[in-house]
Amino acid sequence: MRIDSVDLFYLRMPEVLDIGDGSQDMLLVRVEADGAVGWGECEASPLTSIASFITPLSHSACHPVGDSVVGQRLDDVADIARISAEVRARSLDLLQAEHTLSGIEIAMWDLLGRAQGRPVWQLLGHERSFAKTPYASSLFGDDPQETLEKAAAVRRLGYRAAKFGWGPYGTTTADADADHVHAAREGLGEEGILLVDAGTVFGEDVEAAALRLPALEQARVTWLEEPFTSGALGSYKALAGRAATVRLAGGEGAHSPLMAEHMIDHAGIGFVQIDTGRVGGIGDAARVARHAAAAGVTFVNHTFTSHLALSASLQPFAGMESDWLCEYPVEAKALAREATTTHLDVDADGTVAAPDAPGLGLEVDLEALRRYLVDVEISVNGTTLYKTPELRA
Amino acid sequence: MRIDSVDLFYLRMPEVLDIGDGSQDMLLVRVEADGAVGWGECEASPLTSIASFITPLSHSACHPVGDSVVGQRLDDVADIARISAEVRARSLDLLQAEHTLSGIEIAMWDLLGRAQGRPVWQLLGHERSFAKTPYASSLFGDDPQETLEKAAAVRRLGYRAAKFGWGPYGTTTADADADHVHAAREGLGEEGILLVDAGTVFGEDVEAAALRLPALEQARVTWLEEPFTSGALGSYKALAGRAATVRLAGGEGAHSPLMAEHMIDHAGIGFVQIDTGRVGGIGDAARVARHAAAAGVTFVNHTFTSHLALSASLQPFAGMESDWLCEYPVEAKALAREATTTHLDVDADGTVAAPDAPGLGLEVDLEALRRYLVDVEISVNGTTLYKTPELRA
Repeated sequence: MRIDSVDLFYLRMPEVLDIGDGSQDMLLVRVEADGAVGWGECEASPLTSIASFITPLSHSACHPVGDSVVGQRLDDVADIARISAEVRARSLDLLQAEHTLSGIEIAMWDLLGRAQGRPVWQLLGHERSFAKTPYASSLFGDDPQETLEKAAAVRRLGYRAAKFGWGPYGTTTADADADHVHAAREGLGEEGILLVDAGTVFGEDVEAAALRLPALEQARVTWLEEPFTSGALGSYKALAGRAATVRLAGGEGAHSPLMAEHMIDHAGIGFVQIDTGRVGGIGDAARVARHAAAAGVTFVNHTFTSHLALSASLQPFAGMESDWLCEYPVEAKALAREATTTHLDVDADGTVAAPDAPGLGLEVDLEALRRYLVDVEISVNGTTLYKTPELRA
Repeated sequence: MRIDSVDLFYLRMPEVLDIGDGSQDMLLVRVEADGAVGWGECEASPLTSIASFITPLSHSACHPVGDSVVGQRLDDVADIARISAEVRARSLDLLQAEHTLSGIEIAMWDLLGRAQGRPVWQLLGHERSFAKTPYASSLFGDDPQETLEKAAAVRRLGYRAAKFGWGPYGTTTADADADHVHAAREGLGEEGILLVDAGTVFGEDVEAAALRLPALEQARVTWLEEPFTSGALGSYKALAGRAATVRLAGGEGAHSPLMAEHMIDHAGIGFVQIDTGRVGGIGDAARVARHAAAAGVTFVNHTFTSHLALSASLQPFAGMESDWLCEYPVEAKALAREATTTHLDVDADGTVAAPDAPGLGLEVDLEALRRYLVDVEISVNGTTLYKTPELRA
């Protein structure tokens, strides 16, 4: 097959709020090759990524992303890796390129899987798709009572694991944070697996983060996620050395497999969290999963948006039984929920698995998505380089 | 002072070629606060960076860059650091933000220096501006004879040091590369300091790079730059261990001080090369220079464009006498040469220094630049979010 077209669609909710909810907009990618179609989603600023796809050439290492994709052969898995390498080399100095590439790469896997009638995890060489324990991913409440009620609600929904993050955590005192963490434990019950996400709030400040450790350990929190800026390897390593039972988690900011591998090799983390829609796509996420397994670090997906993104994020570690946990968005906005006609529902036994169907195993709901489509136009010296295309099957 | 406006200008040559010459276009930044004006340059894809500055909000960690700059107080050096930290936190998930921030941050230093009548290196706490030995930065010729002639020309111009890079290097055989390296040495003469830039051509392939070591050492090359992808720490470290006399150089791809510090701490490099227009600006580059000094690694600027960018890149290590070398673009296109009315010329003693004049110490040539100005328009749902502003003093 030959890639005939790559279309990017910016979709968003009628109102986008200044809150830590990444499901309020979406950059959807459609790739077509010889009549076959695949879909992917970038976890990225939509308008900025569109610009990176169509921007005029700056020099030989700063090509628009589109230059290295459209017109390429796409017959097997090796072609996807080759195209990704070409994007990375020819757009080396275009920072946004790796976020944009991620959604395109995912769409290529979906297309290839559909064309061959096989699920992506099979194309990756996994023998089966192991069920994962989903954790419900929520924002902390504005006060501890709201956090407690949110945790109790998650428990009533049947989740065995829950994560609370962002919101007020880390923005005032360690005591105030402790109240939220204890409230989350109370709401979730003694048996639940409790995770906390600090949303990089401590920058590189090890002492500020260390003040939160006693409450986290008293509440038997399994991991403290992103206490620091992505890539603050030294701060992570220092905090990990001071924790008794709580493990550190991080890596969602990685926009290349190398960055994630630095976290595994040099930051002392117990869990590496990869957003397939940022790291370069499914192939790169699978590379990180293999590196993590070799290092004894547990691989977990990072997903806060649609089930298309969730399926893409589950494929890379579908076949790895010991990577047992998965992030499962429970507060996603209507846009993210309506993006697909089918969903990856939690099974009766409380688990979720990458589907057995071809490609990513989900159908995009074009009719629903058209209501959220944003009309973008970018022109340079009077020539229109991008105009929102028609959203078609 | 209060930041009243931040304007971004995309400038480019009438023809942009698919060659490794980053001076073919430019993203210029103008910051105005209470009537004072400062200028900076991003080393970035212009259109993509413009989009990152004006894109609609995605969520609380994916703000447009402009949101965190316009309207801010700017009275002293600490304000610059505070604004930068705010951009990084509020645009955490907007990958392009750090490239865009870099030019804005530089313009803030220029503005503050002009307002206070002091050069930027003084604001940074340096006691004086030490002269650096410039190395002429050129592309390899298409064949060894052309490389020899280019090296001889650089020598005739009086440069004591020269770097050759990109072009055919690493794309065919080790023997062909050896011919280029020996030709460069022949043209430059026995005394000249010779540097080689592989332009990340070997990816992460240590063996391919190691095949080039004998010729580099025979030709007494001081450094081999970027044999690998930015951040391939393990590959760098392995190659460094196999080199006898040639040192590795890298870091130009770093878009945060942390990434550069990883290279210093974990990659075995002898020289860290920082592009102030990418790493986050002058404050972040100065942080890397201090980290490098503490680790015994030599700091060098990475600059391939205008003298505005050159001045910005010299400020962070102006006061550090042991960081003696500086990159000096000799093949820059007319756009880059004409961007300023004054230039940082090589002195009679063959050295270059950050100027003693206020701010970056150079005047932007508005009349010349207007000829290169690109007309950009970006609209979202019928609202124009960006239209190229007037280029004014």
